[in-house]
Amino acid sequence: MKKVLITTVPFSEKDKCSIEMLDAEGIDYLINPLNRKLNEKELAELVTDFDAIIAGTELISDFVMSCSSKLKFISRVGIGLDSVDLVAAKERGISVSYTPDAPAPAVSELTIGLMLALLRSIHLSNNNMHFGQWQRYFGRRLGEMTIGIIGFGRIGKGLLKHLEGFSCQKILINDVIKKPTIKTNLNVEWASKEEIYYQADIISLHIPLTKKTNGMIQKKELLLMKKDAILINTSRGGIINEQDLYDVLKENHLSGVAIDVFQQEPYQGPLQEIDRCLLTAHMGSMSIDCRARMEIEATEEVIRFFNNEPLLGIVPDDEYEVQSNS
Amino acid sequence: MKKVLITTVPFSEKDKCSIEMLDAEGIDYLINPLNRKLNEKELAELVTDFDAIIAGTELISDFVMSCSSKLKFISRVGIGLDSVDLVAAKERGISVSYTPDAPAPAVSELTIGLMLALLRSIHLSNNNMHFGQWQRYFGRRLGEMTIGIIGFGRIGKGLLKHLEGFSCQKILINDVIKKPTIKTNLNVEWASKEEIYYQADIISLHIPLTKKTNGMIQKKELLLMKKDAILINTSRGGIINEQDLYDVLKENHLSGVAIDVFQQEPYQGPLQEIDRCLLTAHMGSMSIDCRARMEIEATEEVIRFFNNEPLLGIVPDDEYEVQSNS
Repeated sequence: MKKVLITTVPFSEKDKCSIEMLDAEGIDYLINPLNRKLNEKELAELVTDFDAIIAGTELISDFVMSCSSKLKFISRVGIGLDSVDLVAAKERGISVSYTPDAPAPAVSELTIGLMLALLRSIHLSNNNMHFGQWQRYFGRRLGEMTIGIIGFGRIGKGLLKHLEGFSCQKILINDVIKKPTIKTNLNVEWASKEEIYYQADIISLHIPLTKKTNGMIQKKELLLMKKDAILINTSRGGIINEQDLYDVLKENHLSGVAIDVFQQEPYQGPLQEIDRCLLTAHMGSMSIDCRARMEIEATEEVIRFFNNEPLLGIVPDDEYEVQSNS
Repeated sequence: MKKVLITTVPFSEKDKCSIEMLDAEGIDYLINPLNRKLNEKELAELVTDFDAIIAGTELISDFVMSCSSKLKFISRVGIGLDSVDLVAAKERGISVSYTPDAPAPAVSELTIGLMLALLRSIHLSNNNMHFGQWQRYFGRRLGEMTIGIIGFGRIGKGLLKHLEGFSCQKILINDVIKKPTIKTNLNVEWASKEEIYYQADIISLHIPLTKKTNGMIQKKELLLMKKDAILINTSRGGIINEQDLYDVLKENHLSGVAIDVFQQEPYQGPLQEIDRCLLTAHMGSMSIDCRARMEIEATEEVIRFFNNEPLLGIVPDDEYEVQSNS
């Protein structure tokens, strides 16, 4: 009997479909017994007897893979591949699939929510009100802002679509692949990252974590941003240096930041001290519909793998190149 | 020298233009010395010696008007006229203007922010995170929702425009005036208020407070709504019965509500106890750009009045009819 280790949590909590499919196929499974993100050692100890992993964002290193002689397939629930050593997987003959489309709509919607919360101090007013304090915060309007989108993949494109409904002043877009034309009613320009740091009122990151983007935004980049800029990260924690972010916020730089992803999760750290730092618990993909779609797609892929059927979500070659080149 | 009482606060805080215009015209003014919403008695005592009021949402009753023999003009900063006794004003020969277009874009943007905050528990996660608690909330996506818009004036139309960027499932619209066609790429239907209460996942109010809408949503109407519905009020406090809202929330009805406007402001009351009640301090119009536009338009109107120039924001007859008929 084939055995799958499900490390991502929660799993099949709101939609039981994935578990039911595994049961129907007679596949044995274990859901992460620690109910939180596993570290490398914990995963290495757990993985020994499994043929496949339905994986979250925990580190799947060469060492982890070396701990299971049976492991032949990794099915990532989500889009980021920074946690999986793809090169090592290839060398060991372990196939890797992912679900890159499923989380995008939930992440782009959360991003707009974070922008509006920061622009209008929704979270601050709510806290005051629950303590009986009436303070009318002045805010700024999304429609008045210049928005910088760094990373124009599935999520960046979804974000642009949402922004069309707000008739924003100007949109600056940066991506490694420059697309010749973008269909939109907005005033869109391609820009370098530096131009975005200088000009944008709101900067939102939608790029993968790779060796090239790791630590991409440090003190120097933060200080290029407008004093009243808003910075939003719903992509991966390692992209912004958290200590540098804390330092510039303490020096009254940036009017607000929203951070959904952290270098170490669950997060504990000094950003907790800062009111204008809006913090959420890696919830970008956590809408019921997108989460169900991610889990179902990842589960279906495992079933296809075990049944020797063609895979639909196999990680493309360029993702391997990003890891081996960088 | 003409004298203006400015009761709305803050005034000319972010944009000094209004004060500068009054100075340039040699108009004397007093800004609300209590720096909060005045009650009827306080306003009656203050108003005695003034020719005009640049007014917020405080009650301008027949009694208040009777306390100033000089008062000839009321210039409302904003759109709502529930606070002004229009019939009494007309009988006393006091003209009333307002700024109905200026606040709309700020209110419709805040409304989307409140929807997304509730759908994704942004405010709750932020509070947890600042206390070092990592909890990943499941949420719902705006694009999956059926949205009920009650009131399809300037703000309701702006809201629809924003929702186009989210490709929502279905939009149900109710208004006293049924427009034959609405230009939109969304799936829009006209509906009765009761149909909206029954069917909508999110219900948002964008109607004036009149004798007809006062207490429009009571326990009966709240219980018609879906158990996991979201209710948002950025219009006027009196429209929802706050005690009934508190009662149904305590009985676990409704998944979340966002309330920006209250029967009595500043608000102190039992809704403060309820976490899934997102509360803000009447900040709908409080974006810097919209607030400045409202103040400037109201100030320009006072100057036009004193100079015997044609008024641009005079309250139309149907607003008087609403008050005298209802």
